[in-house]
Amino acid sequence: VWVVVVAGGSGRRFGGPKQHATLHGRTLIEWALAAARTVADGVVLVATDAAATPSGADRVVLGGTTRAASVRSGLSQVPDAADIIVVHDAARPLATADLFRRVVDAVAAGADAAIPVVPVTDTLKQVDSGAVVATVPRDDLVAVQTPQAFRADLLRRAHRPGGDATDDAGLVEAVGATVRVVPGDPANLKVTTSDDLIVAAALAGRPAAP
Amino acid sequence: VWVVVVAGGSGRRFGGPKQHATLHGRTLIEWALAAARTVADGVVLVATDAAATPSGADRVVLGGTTRAASVRSGLSQVPDAADIIVVHDAARPLATADLFRRVVDAVAAGADAAIPVVPVTDTLKQVDSGAVVATVPRDDLVAVQTPQAFRADLLRRAHRPGGDATDDAGLVEAVGATVRVVPGDPANLKVTTSDDLIVAAALAGRPAAP
Repeated sequence: VWVVVVAGGSGRRFGGPKQHATLHGRTLIEWALAAARTVADGVVLVATDAAATPSGADRVVLGGTTRAASVRSGLSQVPDAADIIVVHDAARPLATADLFRRVVDAVAAGADAAIPVVPVTDTLKQVDSGAVVATVPRDDLVAVQTPQAFRADLLRRAHRPGGDATDDAGLVEAVGATVRVVPGDPANLKVTTSDDLIVAAALAGRPAAP
Repeated sequence: VWVVVVAGGSGRRFGGPKQHATLHGRTLIEWALAAARTVADGVVLVATDAAATPSGADRVVLGGTTRAASVRSGLSQVPDAADIIVVHDAARPLATADLFRRVVDAVAAGADAAIPVVPVTDTLKQVDSGAVVATVPRDDLVAVQTPQAFRADLLRRAHRPGGDATDDAGLVEAVGATVRVVPGDPANLKVTTSDDLIVAAALAGRPAAP
């Protein structure tokens, strides 16, 4: 099992490179690497700045111009012998060891791919020119998180054509594989804005669930 | 302008009636009422327990068995002379006076209805039997918040058939009205779980934006 941790992104919405932001004294990357190591034989960190990377990664590589290109950079550093590859965004520092375990176990048990999902709790609407066109039925919709686990050969094949997608599961779906869903964690938020960092700090500091 | 604040809900996911939960010393209802009062000539509180309601509402009424039935209870207490009716969920304690002003101004300027929306930042997938069926294009999708403002006659007409919907705008769309969207506020979260209350407390206590 190898994990590719993607720490790319310009941090435009964040007001600076968010991978340098700290949460209770550790950078977002350090949080992600620590959780990744609990399931991994090896971890590849895809960084925007290879000089300023923390320990905790076995290999470090520079990212590309899109998220998918960054993942491909990471894949180039994963040994051929890996059976399962997990892709995780460093912007989700609160992904737990349990969550990593859940997606890896699903693929180890035979799934092509496994992704954590949470219910869509917001009402969704389709908008055109500032007006609502339709309310979107949400009963069978879920919101997708990382880490996402894949059979290694399948993930490499899905990335071969070089396309882009909002997540790796989308590329794997495009080559006809079946993506299983496992329960995600509502607290596993994506840190995009400085408010998100305040939220993450509050959730990281809360008492453990009984 | 009258505001109907809906504080119904059994709090099943919360482990108790969330309207009694406090945020920096004030209940969620008190937060909602304080913001509502900044734009309102009158406020109707729809509560599950009329005996234990805070001050700040002009009228208090018991809710129904669905969200829409609770809104209809509230509408029954709004004077006929009201031109604009705003519906707001007490579960969104961080809705600002600015946000109330924005939706009311849009309707005062001629819109049938105005609702605050934020971009959908999560990848969404359609799921069947534990497997992904499709990745949902999200470019023209938004997530809907409250407060939602309406021409009073239109909201009353939309509720007359007695149906249910995830939000009031959905009922108004169903009678053919045009619902305008205004920028929402990512911090205006809906408090559903105890983690959400931790998040709301952190956001409510953060330094003011520069």
